[in-house]
Amino acid sequence: MNDPRLKRVLQNLEKLNLEQAIITSPISIRYLTGYDVEPFERFLALVISTKREPVLFVNSLFPNAAPFAPHIVELTDTDEVIPTLLPYIASDEVLGVDQNLLCKWFLPLQDAHAAAGYQLASSILDDARAVKLPEELDKMRAASRVNDECMAWLMDHVREGVTERELANGLLQQYKLHGASGPSFSPIISFGANAADPHHKPDDTRLVSGNCVLFDVGCVLDEYCSDMTRTAFFGEPSQEFIDAYNLVLKAQKAAENMAAPGVAFSELDKTARDIITAGGYGPNFTHRLGHFIGLQDHETGDVSATNTNRIVAGNCFSIEPGIYVEGRFGIRIEDLLITTDEVCEVINHYPKELKVFN
Amino acid sequence: MNDPRLKRVLQNLEKLNLEQAIITSPISIRYLTGYDVEPFERFLALVISTKREPVLFVNSLFPNAAPFAPHIVELTDTDEVIPTLLPYIASDEVLGVDQNLLCKWFLPLQDAHAAAGYQLASSILDDARAVKLPEELDKMRAASRVNDECMAWLMDHVREGVTERELANGLLQQYKLHGASGPSFSPIISFGANAADPHHKPDDTRLVSGNCVLFDVGCVLDEYCSDMTRTAFFGEPSQEFIDAYNLVLKAQKAAENMAAPGVAFSELDKTARDIITAGGYGPNFTHRLGHFIGLQDHETGDVSATNTNRIVAGNCFSIEPGIYVEGRFGIRIEDLLITTDEVCEVINHYPKELKVFN
Repeated sequence: MNDPRLKRVLQNLEKLNLEQAIITSPISIRYLTGYDVEPFERFLALVISTKREPVLFVNSLFPNAAPFAPHIVELTDTDEVIPTLLPYIASDEVLGVDQNLLCKWFLPLQDAHAAAGYQLASSILDDARAVKLPEELDKMRAASRVNDECMAWLMDHVREGVTERELANGLLQQYKLHGASGPSFSPIISFGANAADPHHKPDDTRLVSGNCVLFDVGCVLDEYCSDMTRTAFFGEPSQEFIDAYNLVLKAQKAAENMAAPGVAFSELDKTARDIITAGGYGPNFTHRLGHFIGLQDHETGDVSATNTNRIVAGNCFSIEPGIYVEGRFGIRIEDLLITTDEVCEVINHYPKELKVFN
Repeated sequence: MNDPRLKRVLQNLEKLNLEQAIITSPISIRYLTGYDVEPFERFLALVISTKREPVLFVNSLFPNAAPFAPHIVELTDTDEVIPTLLPYIASDEVLGVDQNLLCKWFLPLQDAHAAAGYQLASSILDDARAVKLPEELDKMRAASRVNDECMAWLMDHVREGVTERELANGLLQQYKLHGASGPSFSPIISFGANAADPHHKPDDTRLVSGNCVLFDVGCVLDEYCSDMTRTAFFGEPSQEFIDAYNLVLKAQKAAENMAAPGVAFSELDKTARDIITAGGYGPNFTHRLGHFIGLQDHETGDVSATNTNRIVAGNCFSIEPGIYVEGRFGIRIEDLLITTDEVCEVINHYPKELKVFN
């Protein structure tokens, strides 16, 4: 096991007055044990306890190569999961449960009276993962450096007639050339009205004059994710577009400038949202201001009206206001921030002023 | 809604003596409604009932464009999921639950006494999806035709010094050129000892003389998956390798030849396993013989000792015996089969005899 990480997770467990928990998120298991497997429909779980050694349940089909291997129980495809698991759970104690545990496993566990009760306990891992150690912050910086370079490549390849899909494919190649293991999410590359859908998938749309160009892209480098958005314009932008762009930029910078340890996430959202609302585009900013990020592109924790927690050292998150006008255009500007003891540091450096391709 | 499909699913629900169920698998939701969204951490669910109209719960962030749209309830990121859901669930009835429902949603539902009880009911969809309609079988054939052609491309590009990753990248390009939306799973391309791990990820290993070459690859064409494995040899194979190869081939063909409507899946597994065991490699065939396939590469239903169900028209599955010798080589041969009223039809046609590159 990665002991400093396990220790923090077990402390979090005690804070919930729990003595045992079952973790099934492959990424959380990797975080704690180094065991890196995507099990698909097969069972993968880590049972941790403040009183007993952790036990990792794996399918014998996958290579058993956890760098910080705890005690391992191997299952074959014909073994029964629940009877194998029961001896490792104290039936007279409540069991903390990972939010990703599937009902496929949970309902039979409950039917077998595995524990005295069940309680969502993802926070034990979420809270540990949300407070990154210095070596993790370095990896966040490195992944965003690559993303800055690949954003420059994208901007260099904006030309009349290119398709969204062509740019997406080129970007994936660039990530590989830069040593990334892949994208951190399916790249969003949207021209014109496509950008009004914040999650548009790249298609065969060709770039023509009068289109906005939105790039929301990220890669995974050395296990950690980057994620950045820039919006440009191809042709002559209308005054309406320029004004909306500058409003998003103003909101984005305002939130970024106030971010610091001790400030509430909800305050960042409010600051950005108030600026966009004052500009008349409140209903067009349809999503939260940002999300936590790290081993996954979206980690638990968001920058929204409902998250009144305050920023602490180790937090890594995005600030990404947007304005979407159906059938016409979409604008979003996003940077990642990481937090040290003293400051929130913006780790994306690609310029944010409106870039117009004429 | 896609009414013929919904009708079958509701009939399956009645067979379980249930009147309502919650479905959260995005692919099952797409199967029933055409709504195609990967919601990541956001809530997406379809509640169906034998007494009420189906209701789809979506996040307002995603485009609301279900071709067979049922009644839709939109949630924003700040809406509370459980209170929104409760009015649509009959609290005095048992609720059927999708195996993919996360504890993140299920535990709060249970705490809110949403229903009179909860029962795993994935079979209502699994059973419908496992029995494919003629138009689905045609799509399965088309996806495997592309896979046959791309396997030929791979074999054409086997040469000294090429890396696994280079071939994997080339393959992904080929799939796109053939109109596939992408791979149906991350391609497995393994040289030499790497092939002894059935789920090896392509890396920078270079092909050298004396390596076996294993390709386990598939694509998604028009929503349906292909999946095929071939093993070749680069250089002069040992007699041991040739014998093991021919044993796998014999087992694969024997299972394929006996596959027909009415035959038990467990019988196919036994036939192939007995041949490999008689040849002395029983312990080296470490996985089930095959899996169901369709909208997903792995669907519920397997070809293993524990599945005593009999093949029925509409079933689509793989037959893929293997022999793995740690540190030395791996061999696997896999075809897909689809089932019509009369026969099981093998839909991969790339040759299976041992191909030796000298």
